[in-house]
Amino acid sequence: MANSSIYHATATAPVNIAVIKYWGKASTKLNTPTNSSLSVTLSQDDLRTITTASCSASFVADALWLNGGPHDVSNARSQACFAELRSLRKAKEDKDSSLPPLSTYKLHLISENNFPTAAGLASSAAGFAAFVRAIADLYELDESPTELSRIARQGSGSACRSLFGGYVAWEKGDREDGQDSLAVQVAPESHWPTMRAAILVISDAKKGVSSTTGMQATVATSTLFPNRTNVVVPARMEAMKKAIAEKDFETFAELTMADSNSFHAVCLDTIPPIFYMNDTSRAAVRVVEEINRSAGKKVAAYTFDAGPNAVIYYDEANQDIVLGTLKKATAAITGWSDKYAHINAAVPEGFNEAFLEPLAGGVSRVILTSVGSGPLKVPKENALIDEQGNPRSAT
Amino acid sequence: MANSSIYHATATAPVNIAVIKYWGKASTKLNTPTNSSLSVTLSQDDLRTITTASCSASFVADALWLNGGPHDVSNARSQACFAELRSLRKAKEDKDSSLPPLSTYKLHLISENNFPTAAGLASSAAGFAAFVRAIADLYELDESPTELSRIARQGSGSACRSLFGGYVAWEKGDREDGQDSLAVQVAPESHWPTMRAAILVISDAKKGVSSTTGMQATVATSTLFPNRTNVVVPARMEAMKKAIAEKDFETFAELTMADSNSFHAVCLDTIPPIFYMNDTSRAAVRVVEEINRSAGKKVAAYTFDAGPNAVIYYDEANQDIVLGTLKKATAAITGWSDKYAHINAAVPEGFNEAFLEPLAGGVSRVILTSVGSGPLKVPKENALIDEQGNPRSAT
Repeated sequence: MANSSIYHATATAPVNIAVIKYWGKASTKLNTPTNSSLSVTLSQDDLRTITTASCSASFVADALWLNGGPHDVSNARSQACFAELRSLRKAKEDKDSSLPPLSTYKLHLISENNFPTAAGLASSAAGFAAFVRAIADLYELDESPTELSRIARQGSGSACRSLFGGYVAWEKGDREDGQDSLAVQVAPESHWPTMRAAILVISDAKKGVSSTTGMQATVATSTLFPNRTNVVVPARMEAMKKAIAEKDFETFAELTMADSNSFHAVCLDTIPPIFYMNDTSRAAVRVVEEINRSAGKKVAAYTFDAGPNAVIYYDEANQDIVLGTLKKATAAITGWSDKYAHINAAVPEGFNEAFLEPLAGGVSRVILTSVGSGPLKVPKENALIDEQGNPRSAT
Repeated sequence: MANSSIYHATATAPVNIAVIKYWGKASTKLNTPTNSSLSVTLSQDDLRTITTASCSASFVADALWLNGGPHDVSNARSQACFAELRSLRKAKEDKDSSLPPLSTYKLHLISENNFPTAAGLASSAAGFAAFVRAIADLYELDESPTELSRIARQGSGSACRSLFGGYVAWEKGDREDGQDSLAVQVAPESHWPTMRAAILVISDAKKGVSSTTGMQATVATSTLFPNRTNVVVPARMEAMKKAIAEKDFETFAELTMADSNSFHAVCLDTIPPIFYMNDTSRAAVRVVEEINRSAGKKVAAYTFDAGPNAVIYYDEANQDIVLGTLKKATAAITGWSDKYAHINAAVPEGFNEAFLEPLAGGVSRVILTSVGSGPLKVPKENALIDEQGNPRSAT
């Protein structure tokens, strides 16, 4: 076979951290949730996945390389995304016979994260968002991010929210076929650009159960769960959208902390119980509660995903109080770059410093970031592939 | 005033550990609960309070000595118990004028626990049960333990359950005046005498909030709580009574573990969240889950009160498996008396020993006990008072 053309496109996608949590699938087949959720997209300067999607008549199999190593794509989730995206491309080709038949070619995907996998940050959201965005760009699809979010959702639920910047809702939808379970932007990052996040990476001796396994155990066994998903979260979703519209940090903080605790409460109410937070996570909760108490208002909000790491949201206006306190506890830890040299490691007046010590010992890394944009296109010359469509050696 | 007669009576009362938890007051004034609860009374050989109640025309004030030191009785709870008991005595005296007017005399109470206060075991249940039982004996009251439980409840909610041995329910009651909120014996200890309990005393750097404060914060702020108290617990109460009637340990275990987790879940869902379990508590959960998994059935059941200590119930028939595993993890810890020398420190076949190590470091004492009897009368000569009605020096 003659040397065939290699088509490629490259995109980046961000991490998002939910403030109203996704926990529970209505359909495991469609990957639809039992309740809507809402997240803040984080800056790709600090946390992003970059993915080059390429295809060629010469490729013999679909393949994915992740952080330099081959990665399985035979799983149902990756296959669902491939099939949906090819189907959209096929429709385009059927309408315009001058287009190259990319939908019939095998795909090579090369993907890299700019953050350590060991950090235990949910990388599947950014991963599947970049996967879908890069293939959509390669196929020159006209579908909107919301339409693509329906596909990304099938790869990894929370990935649908990483197709947008700013403040993003995943509306659970009501249809049996899951077609209305998709992500919408609640507000762009420019609406409330001063939202910042400090991530405390907390090591854990014991790896918790995977979120896929855990959430279905909760659905099946927690007696408190139906009330959370049917009553508590719908009310919080509305209140959270209003808080974001009004840039009301105190309400945002109250809802964020309450929903994180509610999520971990139904994990604990699962049989057998699921624990993601550990003693260091709880120390982070206490430090944030003490910051807010001594500040006399909510200036910081913790949230915990399916792991011990604390994500602490705050508004830039309160950076000195919030980062000052966190720096006092963790100044010796990796992550305090020169950019934060001017932050004075100090606690607010009246802060009880006894809360700091239990935190200091358990944090292995600090990541300081902020609200950020949605997926970005990367110029062709920065693609992660070589001329044969394989990963570039130097990455 | 001539040297007046000193009247006295002495009683012991047991500790009880709930398997369906009391958490939330319907009325703080009446000390009535939002849901019914159920406990196992533990043997007084290992854990009990002994109290001498004395009164005399010569005493100038009500007074209480606890573990050798004076203790305040001006609080509303102690005062409520004094008033109710005196009122019952007064009614007796009004009917029979030959009785000495003990209801008009001041009371001296001397109380001692046979277990270390530092263990963080809820001693208020045994304390108020012994308080009420000893005064009732001093006053020669005819009221049944259930009738007295209404009074003990006003001292400390869970104290009402310590007026009985065996398996005891505190029925929440429906009346506005709280008169039907009282304890009843579900089954005597002789019905299921092989129930045993291993208490792992777990130290905690950070003292949790008091249960009185904590439970009212939960009632006020947890969105998951109403479902627990109105729906989940009533169903569990019925199922637990049936499990006890049938001596069905597996169902007893499932309900006990689920209800402990449900209670700690609503604590976590409180604003701000309440944490009683720590990493060692969670290690105990995992060890019990692993014992049950490797045994192929539920042979052990954990439960946690408002603190990090684990109470592990098991049937004597499975002592080798349960105690063998706990001994393997904690053999070097205080509490493994000669009585348990014959227990082979070994895990069941297929048990993953990696679960033991996180437990070993955090346990400071082991208390091995069993289901036991209700309050007992103590002979006059063993009273804790001297001839002046003060605490004996040697205790």
